[in-house]
Amino acid sequence: MSTPRRDLCVALVGTGDELVEGRHVDTNSSEIARALIDAGFEPRRFTVLGDDEDALVHTLLELAASHGAIIVTGGLGPTLDDVTRHAAARAAGAELVRDEAVLQGLRELFARRGRPFAEANVRQALFPRGADVLPNPNGTAAGFALEIAGARVFALPGPPREMRPMLAEHVLPRLRARVPDLPCIERRAFHLYGIPESALADAAGAWMARDANPLVGVTASGGRLSVSLRAEAPTRAAAIALAEARAAEIRERFGAWLFSEDEPDLARVLGRTLLARGVTVALAESCTGGLAAERLTRVPGISAVLEYGFVTYANRAKTDLLGVDPALFAAHGAVSAPVAAAMARGAAARSGARLAVSITGVAGPGGGTAEKPVGLVWFGISADGVVTTEERRFLDLGRDLVREFAANTAYDLLLRALRGLSEAAPRGAARG
Amino acid sequence: MSTPRRDLCVALVGTGDELVEGRHVDTNSSEIARALIDAGFEPRRFTVLGDDEDALVHTLLELAASHGAIIVTGGLGPTLDDVTRHAAARAAGAELVRDEAVLQGLRELFARRGRPFAEANVRQALFPRGADVLPNPNGTAAGFALEIAGARVFALPGPPREMRPMLAEHVLPRLRARVPDLPCIERRAFHLYGIPESALADAAGAWMARDANPLVGVTASGGRLSVSLRAEAPTRAAAIALAEARAAEIRERFGAWLFSEDEPDLARVLGRTLLARGVTVALAESCTGGLAAERLTRVPGISAVLEYGFVTYANRAKTDLLGVDPALFAAHGAVSAPVAAAMARGAAARSGARLAVSITGVAGPGGGTAEKPVGLVWFGISADGVVTTEERRFLDLGRDLVREFAANTAYDLLLRALRGLSEAAPRGAARG
Repeated sequence: MSTPRRDLCVALVGTGDELVEGRHVDTNSSEIARALIDAGFEPRRFTVLGDDEDALVHTLLELAASHGAIIVTGGLGPTLDDVTRHAAARAAGAELVRDEAVLQGLRELFARRGRPFAEANVRQALFPRGADVLPNPNGTAAGFALEIAGARVFALPGPPREMRPMLAEHVLPRLRARVPDLPCIERRAFHLYGIPESALADAAGAWMARDANPLVGVTASGGRLSVSLRAEAPTRAAAIALAEARAAEIRERFGAWLFSEDEPDLARVLGRTLLARGVTVALAESCTGGLAAERLTRVPGISAVLEYGFVTYANRAKTDLLGVDPALFAAHGAVSAPVAAAMARGAAARSGARLAVSITGVAGPGGGTAEKPVGLVWFGISADGVVTTEERRFLDLGRDLVREFAANTAYDLLLRALRGLSEAAPRGAARG
Repeated sequence: MSTPRRDLCVALVGTGDELVEGRHVDTNSSEIARALIDAGFEPRRFTVLGDDEDALVHTLLELAASHGAIIVTGGLGPTLDDVTRHAAARAAGAELVRDEAVLQGLRELFARRGRPFAEANVRQALFPRGADVLPNPNGTAAGFALEIAGARVFALPGPPREMRPMLAEHVLPRLRARVPDLPCIERRAFHLYGIPESALADAAGAWMARDANPLVGVTASGGRLSVSLRAEAPTRAAAIALAEARAAEIRERFGAWLFSEDEPDLARVLGRTLLARGVTVALAESCTGGLAAERLTRVPGISAVLEYGFVTYANRAKTDLLGVDPALFAAHGAVSAPVAAAMARGAAARSGARLAVSITGVAGPGGGTAEKPVGLVWFGISADGVVTTEERRFLDLGRDLVREFAANTAYDLLLRALRGLSEAAPRGAARG
């Protein structure tokens, strides 16, 4: 990105006192940047300003000198601190004019909602002369597009659910139309779990050079590694061919850890796979305290396969709900293979689910010993009545992260167990 | 903020390709902005740049013209794309010189960790001539402070856990020392749950004028409203008096909904209160699927009072684990007062906890009817055996938010029940 073409360079501006005072994080610019990169553009600079008209005028003119386009979010509301349309008009040397069609639409919207139309709302029908109005189907603030000092400036509302469709439907097509020789970009993503980082670094090092094409990047989150791939070529067919060649290598080398190419969320991949195959599951959680169930139950419709979750923090609850023999706690401790196995067996028996997973570990802070340090977690997996256990020693990066690693590992173990499961429930499997 | 004093104005710069490409959101600037406001400064502008030395040189000089200080995060690592020290040196017109003490410290750190010292790391001992070195106790990247065109420029590493203590220990004291007549700022926060927004707007409207002192702001999240108060005065005593006068009014008007003045997280407030009072609790969750237990079990030590959590998604599980009479589903449906009451009663009986809450609702998407729309949630509360129910109709803002509202409401109901509970468990209360 060292010798950019100005017509590909885009600057993003977020406005609002709540942003510059740190009360709200500007996520719009990051989201727009990703969409721009996907479309072949280069986001070069984000700027966050308060509701300050002079600063915005100055910033627009400054950015217009070195960027082909500028996308501003926020400042399109009806109140006096919404300054984007006034600043854009001043920067363009244009007066503000009322758009009667937009005004009429606003009046009708208020009438439909049974709300009185305050005169302040007329402000939302003002646009710099010569601007294209960009309709907002999800709110009262229409956006606009305007030429300022040779750059195309787009103004969008700040709420992401209003901004997002306007970006896709109005801004990106207009940007593309301005650059006829826009390079074609083809992206792929590979989501891996449980891969040793060194294995990835050894294999992928050469692919990750900053000028490589396809360009490969790696990000880590909660024990998951996501490998992204971006191929650029003059035609779409060439970009796809370039991407697919590298994708095939990635699948071959890392297939053992690859859980998805489209969905980075392990819980969602597991939930959808369980639903597609109609396999029932139960969860018995100690140190994760409901986290594993919570993530999985975000998947709509999951109640068809997940009927039971047990949060058995106390040993008493493990015995009472899951039938864990109290002698196991005395002999091995609650964080142990025998207890993990008994919890998984109990969860399966109690629920009648074909798959069950148990999680028992030391999430911290405190409670760790030399033998059982913070980060040690035992898992039990019951698959059609066959119970196995797994041990993991996570880095002690704080209670929340240990719990996150543990939940993700439980999902990974369930996905692997699911692959080994026969299509139909075995004869005699307990289904209530 | 319309006529700022330059010596109070601070600009924040985040650097890194991962930021400007949208792969990582710059949260450092927001966090630093809040700390600056607390200290009496005015954050005016955030800029995010890629790893681009020329752009950073240009930006530093541009910002120095109108800001008393600039805080840059990121770009202090050992690799060639870490450009902050080179850019700062160029902007200051200073050469880079090696700091032998820092270099020695780096060599010792690598030796202690048993890692070979690669020559690339020498880069982390380079500083612009004349810069103050700012030690980093949590990483290898030391920061620095440097005068550029009349502005004080601070460079800090990007990882928040390294940046944060350096901001507090090195940057803020140096900034304060540059402005002898810095106004004193006193802040208060009030966290409310369940207050009708109109009640707040009616009462607090006049306090929220943008030039009011104390300045009052309101933010909403997951059904919680947080009221912040910022008083400014020449002396600390005057600022405290100003803040306390308004605080007293807030407590008087909104006390019925105030759950905390220091901790915005309802789950944490509930967990700490349960622990302090030694009151046991059980959770029976349907539509929240473990969310209420997961949040509560983030509180360290909570296992002393939370032994049981039931995730009873299916009616069969509600009957099997909680003893809900199947006839209730047929007569009233699973989302109903009788089922919520039976779930809470069952959770209390099964666990022996003094408090139990149940959550059963329509989280969506889909599953709603005219009579029981998405967003309808019933709660049951059992307090020392006395069972009550509550209905809430949340806005259908998506499955995740409905679940979030429901969990927070459950915590709020438990906190209210806790206030009505006698200190000691009643005679004959079931405790296993």
